[in-house]
This record gives sequence, structure tokens and C-alpha cells, in this order.
Amino acid sequence: MPRLDTVSFLSDYGLADEFVGVVKAVIRTIAPHAVVIDITHDIPPHDTRAGALALARSVQYLPSGVVLAVVDPGVGTDRRAVAVEVGEDPASVFVGPDNGLLAAAVGLAGGAGRAVSLTNDEYHLPSPGPTFAGRDVFAPVAAHLCVGVDIDALGERIDPTSLQPGLIPLTRHEDATVVGEVLWVDRFGNAQLNVDPDEVAAMGDVVTLHAGEQVRTAVRAAAFAELDPGQVGLVVDSYGLLALALDRRSAAEELRLHPGDAVTLEAAR
Amino acid sequence: MPRLDTVSFLSDYGLADEFVGVVKAVIRTIAPHAVVIDITHDIPPHDTRAGALALARSVQYLPSGVVLAVVDPGVGTDRRAVAVEVGEDPASVFVGPDNGLLAAAVGLAGGAGRAVSLTNDEYHLPSPGPTFAGRDVFAPVAAHLCVGVDIDALGERIDPTSLQPGLIPLTRHEDATVVGEVLWVDRFGNAQLNVDPDEVAAMGDVVTLHAGEQVRTAVRAAAFAELDPGQVGLVVDSYGLLALALDRRSAAEELRLHPGDAVTLEAAR
Amino acid sequence: MPRLDTVSFLSDYGLADEFVGVVKAVIRTIAPHAVVIDITHDIPPHDTRAGALALARSVQYLPSGVVLAVVDPGVGTDRRAVAVEVGEDPASVFVGPDNGLLAAAVGLAGGAGRAVSLTNDEYHLPSPGPTFAGRDVFAPVAAHLCVGVDIDALGERIDPTSLQPGLIPLTRHEDATVVGEVLWVDRFGNAQLNVDPDEVAAMGDVVTLHAGEQVRTAVRAAAFAELDPGQVGLVVDSYGLLALALDRRSAAEELRLHPGDAVTLEAAR
Repeated sequence: MPRLDTVSFLSDYGLADEFVGVVKAVIRTIAPHAVVIDITHDIPPHDTRAGALALARSVQYLPSGVVLAVVDPGVGTDRRAVAVEVGEDPASVFVGPDNGLLAAAVGLAGGAGRAVSLTNDEYHLPSPGPTFAGRDVFAPVAAHLCVGVDIDALGERIDPTSLQPGLIPLTRHEDATVVGEVLWVDRFGNAQLNVDPDEVAAMGDVVTLHAGEQVRTAVRAAAFAELDPGQVGLVVDSYGLLALALDRRSAAEELRLHPGDAVTLEAAR
Repeated sequence: MPRLDTVSFLSDYGLADEFVGVVKAVIRTIAPHAVVIDITHDIPPHDTRAGALALARSVQYLPSGVVLAVVDPGVGTDRRAVAVEVGEDPASVFVGPDNGLLAAAVGLAGGAGRAVSLTNDEYHLPSPGPTFAGRDVFAPVAAHLCVGVDIDALGERIDPTSLQPGLIPLTRHEDATVVGEVLWVDRFGNAQLNVDPDEVAAMGDVVTLHAGEQVRTAVRAAAFAELDPGQVGLVVDSYGLLALALDRRSAAEELRLHPGDAVTLEAAR
Repeated sequence: MPRLDTVSFLSDYGLADEFVGVVKAVIRTIAPHAVVIDITHDIPPHDTRAGALALARSVQYLPSGVVLAVVDPGVGTDRRAVAVEVGEDPASVFVGPDNGLLAAAVGLAGGAGRAVSLTNDEYHLPSPGPTFAGRDVFAPVAAHLCVGVDIDALGERIDPTSLQPGLIPLTRHEDATVVGEVLWVDRFGNAQLNVDPDEVAAMGDVVTLHAGEQVRTAVRAAAFAELDPGQVGLVVDSYGLLALALDRRSAAEELRLHPGDAVTLEAAR
């Protein structure tokens, strides 16, 4: 098997502790040639949904190699740790807990090929305690994949259809409205919705927005800077989905929106 | 053109989202040999002045290569995206929006040589939406520069004198006082002023400081640890400018100073 | 001397400023082949104890090379800057201020061999001011070690026994209780104690915990997810020490614990 030379790494470890650094140190020790790309480590603790969405947004841009993702509230229990091959020529391998974190990204990258449960502890580090699988299981597995160990050596084959699915929230169309959901609030306060621009195309350039108790008018805009001060915009974001935005201010703060909140859109009267 | 192998990268993307990781993934895919150095990504959102100052403080230490800087409130509008060649043998190339972010650093690095507007979208990624130019324009351009694409291939030549200038605040000398400004508050709470030590040399070792309503005494000191507890120091910082400091505490918090605040210094009576 | 090719880097610089980026830029300029692994840069400002503990937790996982650690409240004073050789074949070199930051990690890595005070400023950068030794002293020294400069070239030999020791808090056993201390609170709110599982083995699976005014019951558990909601667990953490934990919540917040706080454990009646 050819060597893989990139590990794209996402976690909820944060950067305040040494967790991320130690994972990289383990990878460097086993696979000195491998380069680690940090996707992000600030997934909220234990938030597998947020981690799955961030991974899904990133996956099409990742170089082939290992994708290492660790948001793992069940660490130390009997949740499976898995490696999942995706694509070919060269194949990438997704490594992480089997808790839905990987599912959407694996799907977007072409679907699961060979999959194994990481039961062969020859490729793990000895653990003083069971709570840091990133260091003791996932990092050494990722690194061994980079040096050419075949996925089948890492543990027993599992049926890819047995992998935990991810939950992708769908919009609902009711009468002339679209009921969607906030998927993500970014650093700039843009609130990405699970709504495709096509779903609201017929509503025209001005839309009425219901979010909790609030009723607001939002205008379609191509760029943040097209918006007047305080005007709520509905922008096609960099992933092709609709996002609520303000110019140089946080729309999520102004509208008090958080991931998971429901939002209803209809044509303005 | 010789290959460049370092991309020094500054942005206001933060590390909570996957923006920085995706930019690096794009660079790695196109230019696998290039190493990315993160200058910082915690420039306050849209704060081009803070970004320009951080870049100017860093620039003399950066290895030759590409300097990628993205603080871009006008993304998606007709603000220009540019690449600017600086120095020679080897030249570095600064890549970013033309909004003043690059100006001070380009000047400190020797001034602009060839400059182009990034109008050739053959070197961009297809965009699902226009709001993430870091991923879709700047990263692929930076990476293509690393693999040897000539700057002239990236778009049409522009006059370097047409590049947006940066604003460098100057001190004012009035009677026996120096009126300056806080340029930067660092993690430790040191407040860097735009004041050169020579400007206050004649004032002696004890200086009276006016900041808003406050009048405080500050003493010249060579190191933070020379200061008594609670004593405000005036220290020559690591960039050769004066900074207000306390020993192991935040001077900016104590004096309620923020970037842009005016500060007046005079000899203590 | 063979080249070293990894610099493992810990500091209290944070990531909001460009300090870490500039240190890496200096290393890259002098030693382009060296890879920098960030252990963490979010050690609380000036907290040498927290830095020393994070370094000690990491050290067994670091690849051989240079270990660069900077938490340096005495910067600019006459505190020594040092390089300390550890192990052999290949030796690693620890670089940082001589203030106790390095001591525990050096000990865990096998103890100090040759040690020098970094008095030879041929291997430093010229300093506009004395407050950023990371950039002007430690980074160029680390990089020169990577390109093969012998430790003895960096300054005058010092007696390794003269290096500032670290303070490792010991537990006390009083009657049937163990009095320990919180060493570390991690991102997930787990509070690591300086207590070895063996020290409480005789207490059984249910333990009474005294922390300040609080008296709580804690149960031994192998994994966070074994705990009932709100139940305080006593878990063997990934370093082999006992930690107080809750399932998917912060035990430190619930119990109002901070690093350095005393905790008493006894068998539940």
C-alpha cells in the first residue's frame, strides 16, 4: 500500500491543553514524514453534530490521506473505534469513534469502502488510563496507516452499513413557507441554514423571517458589504447554502440564533 | 521562477471554525511541498488596522516565500484581490485583499515591485458562494505561486502606487508633551504605543501619563520584573517602541486602555 | 552532531498575538528542515507551574529533538536562559528559562546531561528590546541546535544540579484519609489530582470527598459515560492519576475546583 502523507485532524480537544500537541507528537514519532493539517479543534466538547457538520463542510477540500476526527463522549465504553476507507487511487482513510461523527463526510467523499473496528492493539499505545483514545488509539492508527499498514491489519472487518449514521436535518415546506434550521454560527456571526437557495427562489428578493418570537425582514444579497447597517441579509454562503448575515456584525447575536434553532422563511407581503 | 516553499498566513478567521484548516488543505493539495506558518488568526473580525499592524510587526522575521493575509470585510464586492512582489533573490509575494492590510508590511519589506489584480480565475477554485475568498481565491493563488506560477499569470498588472495605503498614526509634540496612541494590547496586557523611546528621552526616568480621565506616574524600566507591584512601567518593547506595562499584570486593564486610545506623556514634576 | 528535526514548543504566548508565529518564522529561517509541534501555547500567563505540569504530561510522547518551553515572567532580568541535554542516541535538548519550568520534564526524560547558560549571543538575534526572548534567544538557539550546532557552542557550561528545581506536590496520608491537590483542570472540566490510584485502592468503590466546604460522594468509574447524570466520578485518567469527573459536564465547575486546591479523600461510611 502506498504511503499516505497527510493527516487532516479535527477534534473537540481545544488548544488550551496539550491534547492536540501530544496527538501530533505521537504521529510524528511513528510517521515522521506525515504532515498534520488542523481542521479545527474547537468543536464544542462532546458535540458530535457540530463536529460532523464541520467535517462535512471541509471534506471536499482535504487532500487524500488520513482524516482523523475525535469527538468522543463515549470514550472508554464499548462504542467502536473505526477506520473507514473512502475513494480510491489513492484511497483516504477516516479514523475516529463510530458515533455518527464521520458519517456525513464519508458519504460526501464517496461512501465507505473497507471498514474495520480498531481491535488490534498492536497498533495502539499502552494506556495508563482509558480516557485519551486520541493519543493511545487513533493517533497511532493514523500514523501506521501513513507508513503503509493495511487497514485490514488494524482490526476486524465490519459491515460499512453497520456504521452509525449521521443525522442531516431536512427542511419542511408548508404552504408557502420553508421551515429550516440553523446548522452553524461562524466566528463572524453568520448563521448558516440548511436551506438551499433554490428552495426560496420563488419568494423574491425580500423574505420574512420567523425565528422564535421574532419576525424580521431579510433581503437577498450577494455580499455582506451590500447590506445597509442593521439590515438582515440572506446570503448564499461559501458552501452554497443560505446564511443569515449582517454587514460587519453578528447576525446570530442580533437575532439570538444558535445551532439547532428553527427558522421559517416566507415571501414578504 | 524558483519554487517558494513557505506560506506565512495571517487572518481574522479565528480557530473555532474550519476556515484556517480548509485554506491549508487547499494549499497542501496544490503545493504539497509548501509549509504554512500561522502568524495569527485571531485578528478581531474585519479589523484591517489590527491585521496590518500585526503583519508589520512580524514581517522582518518571515522567511522568504508567500505572505498570505486575509482580513476582508469587503469580500464579494469589487475591492481588488492582489498579489504584490517584494524584494528579490528570492522575491516574496504578498497576497490578500487591497484594503490597506498589506501596505505597511510591504513598505517595511522593501516596497512593492510587480503587482497584479487576481483576475485570472483559472488559478481560483470554483465557488459555491462568494464569501470565502481565502479558500477560493487567495489560497489557490498562494499555492500556485509556490509551485512556480509567475505573478503575471495571475491577473492584470496594476500600478503599485494604486494600492490602498495603510494608515500609520503619528505622534504629536505639543509644548513639552508627546501625544501618542495605543497601537496594540498584547496577551499580557502590555499596551504598545506609537512612541519611540527617543521622543521621551529628555523627560527622564519618571513620566506623567494622561489617558482619558486618568493621570498616572510611569517609570522607565528595562524589564517587567523590575517594577514594584502596581507600578506602571514604560518599557522599550521587543519592537523598539514604548509600551505601558505592569509586572505580571495587565497594564491595559489597569489603565483601561484599548487600541486606538490617545495617551499623553510629559516629564513628571 | 546529527541534525535534530523536530522542535516541540510550549509557551504562555497565546494565539491571539503573533508571538508563536514569529518564533516559528525565526526557526524556519535558520533551520528550514525542522518541523515545529505545538504542545500548547495557552498556559496561563506567567504560570510556570502549569507550564511545567503540561510539559511533564507530554514529555514521554515527544519525538527526540529540541523541546522549547517559554513561560518566562523574569524575561529581561538576570534569570538564566539555558539549554539542557537529555538522553542519548539521539539526545534531545530542552531550551528555556531556568525558572523550574523544565525541571519535571527533564527528570522524567532521564535527567540532565550537559547544560549550558545561553551566554553566546552569536546564536541570538539582535533585540530591539529585551522582552521577547522567545524570538531573540530561544528560537534561534533551538534552530541552531537543529542545524547541528553543539550545545557547548551556545554558552558556558553550568552544573546541572544548579538548575532551578520544579515543585511536585506530594500527597499526605492522615489516618484513613489522603490529602491531595488539584494539579490540572482540563477543557472538559476533569480535575486531575496528584493522587495515584493505589493510594485509595483500600477505600473501595465509593469515596467521600472533601473540597473546601463541600462534602461529596464520588464513585470509582472506568469511563466518563459509566457515570449517572450528576454523579461525581473518580476516574483513572490518561496519565494514570486519579481525576474527578462528571459525564459530559465539568466536574471542576460543579465542585468549584481550581489548580492548587486541596482535596481530601476517605472511604465512604
